[in-house]
Amino acid sequence: MPRILFAAAEARWAQYEAPLRTALAEAGIEARLDCDASAPETVDYMIFAPNGAIEDFRPFCSLKAVLNLWAGVEDVVGNPTLTVPLARMVDTGLTEGMVEWCVGQTLRHHLGLDRQITTQDGVWRHFDWIPPLARNRKVCVLGLGALGSAVARTLVSLNFQVSGYSRSPKQIDGVTCFSGADMTEALRDAEIAIALFPYTPATDSILDADAFAAMAHGGVILNPGRGGLIDDAALLAALDSGQIGQATLDVFRTEPLPPDHAYWAHPKVTVTPHIASETRPETAARVIVENIRRGEAGLPFINLVDRVAGY
Amino acid sequence: MPRILFAAAEARWAQYEAPLRTALAEAGIEARLDCDASAPETVDYMIFAPNGAIEDFRPFCSLKAVLNLWAGVEDVVGNPTLTVPLARMVDTGLTEGMVEWCVGQTLRHHLGLDRQITTQDGVWRHFDWIPPLARNRKVCVLGLGALGSAVARTLVSLNFQVSGYSRSPKQIDGVTCFSGADMTEALRDAEIAIALFPYTPATDSILDADAFAAMAHGGVILNPGRGGLIDDAALLAALDSGQIGQATLDVFRTEPLPPDHAYWAHPKVTVTPHIASETRPETAARVIVENIRRGEAGLPFINLVDRVAGY
Repeated sequence: MPRILFAAAEARWAQYEAPLRTALAEAGIEARLDCDASAPETVDYMIFAPNGAIEDFRPFCSLKAVLNLWAGVEDVVGNPTLTVPLARMVDTGLTEGMVEWCVGQTLRHHLGLDRQITTQDGVWRHFDWIPPLARNRKVCVLGLGALGSAVARTLVSLNFQVSGYSRSPKQIDGVTCFSGADMTEALRDAEIAIALFPYTPATDSILDADAFAAMAHGGVILNPGRGGLIDDAALLAALDSGQIGQATLDVFRTEPLPPDHAYWAHPKVTVTPHIASETRPETAARVIVENIRRGEAGLPFINLVDRVAGY
Repeated sequence: MPRILFAAAEARWAQYEAPLRTALAEAGIEARLDCDASAPETVDYMIFAPNGAIEDFRPFCSLKAVLNLWAGVEDVVGNPTLTVPLARMVDTGLTEGMVEWCVGQTLRHHLGLDRQITTQDGVWRHFDWIPPLARNRKVCVLGLGALGSAVARTLVSLNFQVSGYSRSPKQIDGVTCFSGADMTEALRDAEIAIALFPYTPATDSILDADAFAAMAHGGVILNPGRGGLIDDAALLAALDSGQIGQATLDVFRTEPLPPDHAYWAHPKVTVTPHIASETRPETAARVIVENIRRGEAGLPFINLVDRVAGY
């Protein structure tokens, strides 16, 4: 009977225990599942999140795989004590939630919802408040992996003019795709840009002054990806100059974002508390268990991380 | 050469003249087009909106058709002096704008954007602010004509659980459709309801206390349809009791909504100034000209109003 250690933060155990046991039963897998890290040499699979207690994987000498609970693996991928396969989360619930956050925030800025919500003063501003149609609104999606391509496709279905950028070339129906050295071209005249890159040394601060300058004046930045994608000083400068008109940020270099951070008080910034990419226990548990089933059956794992690329 | 009278409010002439001339030229139609109502007996086609000056159609004795600039015809359909065919606007631009308003407002309430926009106080509310997935959110679309069915289809594509109601039975993929006497069933447990009925004697105040009571406690009302669809006193009572949690209203019995109306000041109401269903001159001009082309070619008009049904 395989032993599965739940090694994410203890608060998650209450959320995940029942869905994991249900998914194991559905898959016909009998296993020992707990969050007790004693006897590490007997652990076969580790369900991992970087906010847990484990930093040294060496005592887990029988480990067959580390199954990350989140999509992002930047805090574990470089850990030299981790030598077994590492899988990241590709959760349909996470993807759906991400698409909903991105499309909702895009429509919020497209339609000008903020002024509608905050300006209920009895003045009838009919012509002032009519937005353009989505077909006349340029949106750029940065990063075209599982999340970015789902967001781009949904925005196309809503008639937005969508450009996209990824490291390697991609083709997505209705999306003008750029790759390699052409990120600035993808961002050219974009009114809304959505950052969905993985966080790697190559994407650190990739949204910098040059990127902001390529966008339409007064453009909007949405960052549901990773805090490190943004050059924070450059973004604050672009907000103050007016080149960037608004930023809605869900992720930060330090989380929770400290109460005294400039983003909280900035009138052109909306902070959301890392809610765009929440893994959903019911769907995520099935993804975790599918990899355990594969491991027990001697099949290749799915969603494996490329340790060199970093995601 | 047919004579076309532009009889909507004069302020619209500046918006519509160029798109209409362009559309006429594209259709190869030579016509006299102006907004001069003299010599009414020589007018062949009237482009009409109820905020214009014309109330008596009898002097226009050669008229072949009245082409309404808006989707709603309730202010003209009962005019006894109008005896020629009346076409309403079915504008792709209007439909797109309506879908964008409805989907944007639905996602606003689904995601809880208001509290994100207005509560930037440095407190990291991760678990409090995670919304359910759209697949677990019930939305009801009331009225499944050109606009309602487009809205319902788009909400289905975003994974919402969508029910719909229309006077006559409809079938829309992914939508649980109700008709006839079953409006309350369509609204049962809905968390968001979108009013897109035409305004007729049968739909006056159709959203009343019984309708609100059928919805989930704290449900949201979106009204981009017509002001008269709502029993205003019942809505204010339902907002005050908490049965309805929020209402976003784009249309009203009196427009502009008077500055002292209770809706403006109500903390649970967002007023938008009749911007959801704006006809777009470029696309609307083509629809108008298509009917003129048909009239000149002896073909049946499109988008004709059923004078008995009232829409």
